[in-house]
Amino acid sequence: MNFLEERIVKDGVVKPGNVLKVDSFLNHQIDISLMDEIGREFHRRFQDKPITKVLTIETSGIAIAYPVAREFGVPVVFAKKSKSINLDGDMYVAEVESFTHKNKNQVIVSKRFLSPEDHVLIVDDFLANGCALQGLISIAEASGATVEGLGIAIEKGFQIGGRVIRNLGYPLESLAIVDGMDPEKGTIQFRQQD
Amino acid sequence: MNFLEERIVKDGVVKPGNVLKVDSFLNHQIDISLMDEIGREFHRRFQDKPITKVLTIETSGIAIAYPVAREFGVPVVFAKKSKSINLDGDMYVAEVESFTHKNKNQVIVSKRFLSPEDHVLIVDDFLANGCALQGLISIAEASGATVEGLGIAIEKGFQIGGRVIRNLGYPLESLAIVDGMDPEKGTIQFRQQD
Repeated sequence: MNFLEERIVKDGVVKPGNVLKVDSFLNHQIDISLMDEIGREFHRRFQDKPITKVLTIETSGIAIAYPVAREFGVPVVFAKKSKSINLDGDMYVAEVESFTHKNKNQVIVSKRFLSPEDHVLIVDDFLANGCALQGLISIAEASGATVEGLGIAIEKGFQIGGRVIRNLGYPLESLAIVDGMDPEKGTIQFRQQD
Repeated sequence: MNFLEERIVKDGVVKPGNVLKVDSFLNHQIDISLMDEIGREFHRRFQDKPITKVLTIETSGIAIAYPVAREFGVPVVFAKKSKSINLDGDMYVAEVESFTHKNKNQVIVSKRFLSPEDHVLIVDDFLANGCALQGLISIAEASGATVEGLGIAIEKGFQIGGRVIRNLGYPLESLAIVDGMDPEKGTIQFRQQD
């Protein structure tokens, strides 16, 4: 097990309905040392790429993006989520449909912050069905930027997001891939990775 | 002028209606070097306080809270905003009324992450009317934690939030206090601070 898998086993809570709560260290309370280690690990995995921007989506993606961007010495750009927004200036907008909630959301990035010269690393805390990430990829592609890869803290391997993005040919690195959880026993089964 | 005021003059954009856009470095695209400098500055200003948690509110507060918490070696706790939420477990909830939008929002923090032993530094990117900050103070006080101070990147000195919080006796440090803006000339008038 790597450092993140160990932390999930120690402090994650498995709830019925395939819910994994990691709010004590990742997405409500944030352990900065752990985030810094995630930043170093994604830098190690993507260091051969000429990254110019780290792209994520509000809210909890920001705490992952910060240390990654710090390692690469580049800015973070975080996309905004909105049900519908008054577009102030020129924005890239991706309309993404939630598989779980059946509603549509907009993912929005100002055109000033992505350009064809950019080499983008997309990061987020969770990958499940991948709707938000598909929106980020769509926006990055629309800007003409190069999507160099995607870095995810926790992927739910039993949902389709990871497969969709790998099938599309994007290099996707998930630090922990959860293939199954048992809410009765509280156990978590991680996918073996190299 | 300090480093943040200089950056606001360089890259901030004054819009009609007392709007100051800082989205190229603070709250859409994020300049990590600048954030790290903000972190060091707030640490310098509050280093005599026994801070155990840095408390902020989603979304753009997270990018300020991260480097501050890093300097103090403590976790970030970020409150969630919601119009109304299914409370899962025990939550501190503050209902705050927006002066500008006339609507009510809830500010929510899990009870697991604030306790009477905590010494809290509250940080955020902007202070205008201070509704969100009042909600954070209310939650911290309800938990029994000690509010050691508040650190704000940009205060709009011509709105009431700063006065309210200082009148309540909380140590409030704003790195830049904007007392006036001229959208025609694009000029910004900062309050002289020691």
